[in-house]
Amino acid sequence: MASSPASPRVVVPTKALPAPRFRYSPVVVAHPFAFVSGLVGLDPATGALATGGAYGQTVQILANFTALLQEQGWSLSQLVVARLFCTSPDGAASMNQAWEELFKDEVPPARTSVIVAGLPLGAEVEIEFQLVLTQGA
Amino acid sequence: MASSPASPRVVVPTKALPAPRFRYSPVVVAHPFAFVSGLVGLDPATGALATGGAYGQTVQILANFTALLQEQGWSLSQLVVARLFCTSPDGAASMNQAWEELFKDEVPPARTSVIVAGLPLGAEVEIEFQLVLTQGA
Amino acid sequence: MASSPASPRVVVPTKALPAPRFRYSPVVVAHPFAFVSGLVGLDPATGALATGGAYGQTVQILANFTALLQEQGWSLSQLVVARLFCTSPDGAASMNQAWEELFKDEVPPARTSVIVAGLPLGAEVEIEFQLVLTQGA
Repeated sequence: MASSPASPRVVVPTKALPAPRFRYSPVVVAHPFAFVSGLVGLDPATGALATGGAYGQTVQILANFTALLQEQGWSLSQLVVARLFCTSPDGAASMNQAWEELFKDEVPPARTSVIVAGLPLGAEVEIEFQLVLTQGA
Repeated sequence: MASSPASPRVVVPTKALPAPRFRYSPVVVAHPFAFVSGLVGLDPATGALATGGAYGQTVQILANFTALLQEQGWSLSQLVVARLFCTSPDGAASMNQAWEELFKDEVPPARTSVIVAGLPLGAEVEIEFQLVLTQGA
Repeated sequence: MASSPASPRVVVPTKALPAPRFRYSPVVVAHPFAFVSGLVGLDPATGALATGGAYGQTVQILANFTALLQEQGWSLSQLVVARLFCTSPDGAASMNQAWEELFKDEVPPARTSVIVAGLPLGAEVEIEFQLVLTQGA
């Protein structure tokens, strides 16, 4: 099930993110980019959604993402774009609050944010990330 | 209407996918990536949505995508990320079932999945794909 | 707050787009791609959503995007993929009308279009763009 050595796609093993509940790879690298699957706010310790509604779930997503960065030796300054999905306008305000705390002293990435009708596992927030790993040729 | 030879963007002609009903290019390559437009489950033989609800439509989308891979000489192992849109939680379960059948013996890509309020042509499922074609420099 | 010189990510200053209302960078380049944040139809002159519903907002988004292209020396032929979000089926028809006018004589990009439950600032349409800037190695 591992990527072929000849493949330009590398599935990155990670212990920083909760185990997938569906059939996907949490992190895939295709140079010069790393693609992180849309994350919901699962607490790796319990496997359940974090408490605290959209705010708490966003804090958890960003904590999981930050743990991934530390594990892989990546940094927030390599984040090029994030896509944020939330299930209500009120939730979006809470999501934005948690987001702004993370990027208080960091240059933020490009971003697309929409309100959707629902998310996997009954989550209120889902965020997808794309990083650049090296200078493109 | 063809891409300029000097353009780093190449619009890929394909007979594997149904003709666009809207103004977009089904497949665009910008090295090292190929971008496949969000596909709904149109049967190329009839031009209509496949029967069988979200499950049947997902099977059709994945069949069309697989036909594209064969036509272009690409493989599932080059798929880096997919974005799945579905119009109901029940539909998402059916969509996941068809998805899991395709990736039963294949390493899956990164993935983002959300439930939306609606899709073009009254579809229940839409999936967007991004592949990596060559090793990035 | 500027990108580190060593960073492969470059945040592009622009006067063509309305100032962000949330914490994100409107345009980020990671070679060979430029990522443009999801834009809603804000009139740069007033800072308010353009009039004319989904059609008027889409015209405004595409005018802002076109101004960005001119400012940066980029062209529509470098647009590889766009993601369109709209809040109603009727709005989607209007959005498509404005879209088709822009691409009347231009090869369109890959595209994903979905109907969502809501958008920031009460917008009816949001569009995200990705361009390729140079031939990938």
